[in-house]
Amino acid sequence: MLPAPRIEIISVTGIPLVQPGDDLTTLICDAVNRGGLTIEDDDILVIAQTVVSKAEGSIIKLDEIKPSVEARIISEQIVKDPRITEVILKGAREIIRLRGPHLITQTRHGWICANSAVDISNVSGGDAVTTLPEDADKSAREIRRRIKEVTGKKVAVIISDTFGRPFRVGQTNIAVGVAGMGALLDRKGEKDLFGYTLKVKQIAVADELASAAELVIGEAAEGIPVAIIRGYPFKPDKEGNAKELIRPMDSDLFI
Amino acid sequence: MLPAPRIEIISVTGIPLVQPGDDLTTLICDAVNRGGLTIEDDDILVIAQTVVSKAEGSIIKLDEIKPSVEARIISEQIVKDPRITEVILKGAREIIRLRGPHLITQTRHGWICANSAVDISNVSGGDAVTTLPEDADKSAREIRRRIKEVTGKKVAVIISDTFGRPFRVGQTNIAVGVAGMGALLDRKGEKDLFGYTLKVKQIAVADELASAAELVIGEAAEGIPVAIIRGYPFKPDKEGNAKELIRPMDSDLFI
Repeated sequence: MLPAPRIEIISVTGIPLVQPGDDLTTLICDAVNRGGLTIEDDDILVIAQTVVSKAEGSIIKLDEIKPSVEARIISEQIVKDPRITEVILKGAREIIRLRGPHLITQTRHGWICANSAVDISNVSGGDAVTTLPEDADKSAREIRRRIKEVTGKKVAVIISDTFGRPFRVGQTNIAVGVAGMGALLDRKGEKDLFGYTLKVKQIAVADELASAAELVIGEAAEGIPVAIIRGYPFKPDKEGNAKELIRPMDSDLFI
Repeated sequence: MLPAPRIEIISVTGIPLVQPGDDLTTLICDAVNRGGLTIEDDDILVIAQTVVSKAEGSIIKLDEIKPSVEARIISEQIVKDPRITEVILKGAREIIRLRGPHLITQTRHGWICANSAVDISNVSGGDAVTTLPEDADKSAREIRRRIKEVTGKKVAVIISDTFGRPFRVGQTNIAVGVAGMGALLDRKGEKDLFGYTLKVKQIAVADELASAAELVIGEAAEGIPVAIIRGYPFKPDKEGNAKELIRPMDSDLFI
């Protein structure tokens, strides 16, 4: 009998406030060492978008933004700082909804979420915002490469963000960048307990791993931006690609 | 310094095939003992809907179903067994979409998902289906009460199912029943690293815990229907209520 699967979600504490230009991998590895932890082969590192964006300099100071007429008009409707609206519009491929104080957009990358995932929290007290990394898959690949360089270990990396979703109350963490593993686990064709062949099952494991990590990743006062998930038997993939998780609108059954 | 949060997801293997009328709690506790595991205070038990439905007798034999005219007409469009369509319609408050081979409905309980969450896998090889428990919160409360009775331990219970979702490819596990904890964690008003007050953060922790458990819960060949999540500091709640996760359509920003 195989041992029963058991997974650990280990928080990485003690990462200092990240500044543009910081080598995030070194900050993470140092915090891991200081915490008496290790990074092992086949660990999955889940990293909150906010620290990746900061390290990459995806921070925008609001006093450097001159809002467009469009941003001003929209801001009158949604009671949002027109400079923030300007950043949201810049990050959007399309406006999906404009309701109450909320702007639902499709980001340049293809994600559908509130405010083009522009985040005002955890930046500098309200006078700057972070945007999503330019290419979070590339960011994840780069961190994965550097982890190998620094520790010798082969890991998978997921960059996570907190998104709302239709139909259900509350936000969950999802993956916006993936490296070293498949974002989806295809179970079509597997047989169930009675030999019945599963027809539609395709599990968004990268999103589930991001949600699992959120249970220790605090984005507020605690300041835990990284978790190590150990014991999940993922299928290694040299590349990995969170964009697999973007459903083309014309194949979306729900909308 | 507080110890860094660490969470374990422990699979419970060796639960026999569940039959209508079985005492699921006893089956779970016996499997936990046989596996050399224990149930502890403040554990969260995540249980796949399928075994709860089976124990409660929410199984429908297809040869006992006489499809309605409506079910036959819809089945012609979606290439689905009209008897299954009949069960889906019976479980639906409303049909949301009818596309390809898929029927998106709002279930009697209020969940929006494919096929009213009627499941043909893991039942009996294709001649029967399971439906959601009549009241999965009540099921969760009852299991929680029985766990206390059998083990003396105070746990939280989540009943999970696998749902697709808009905008994103792949399915994730979500909560359809919750007992002993809040389904949502409200972080509005908490301060971030810079003292900025979070305005909109409300985390669907029950869904995140269900997704975390899915990483060990196999619904196919492995047959692991239960996971114990240990170390997550949830806020105990005598009741608990997955229905909190149902977003009323008229307040849905995304659709």
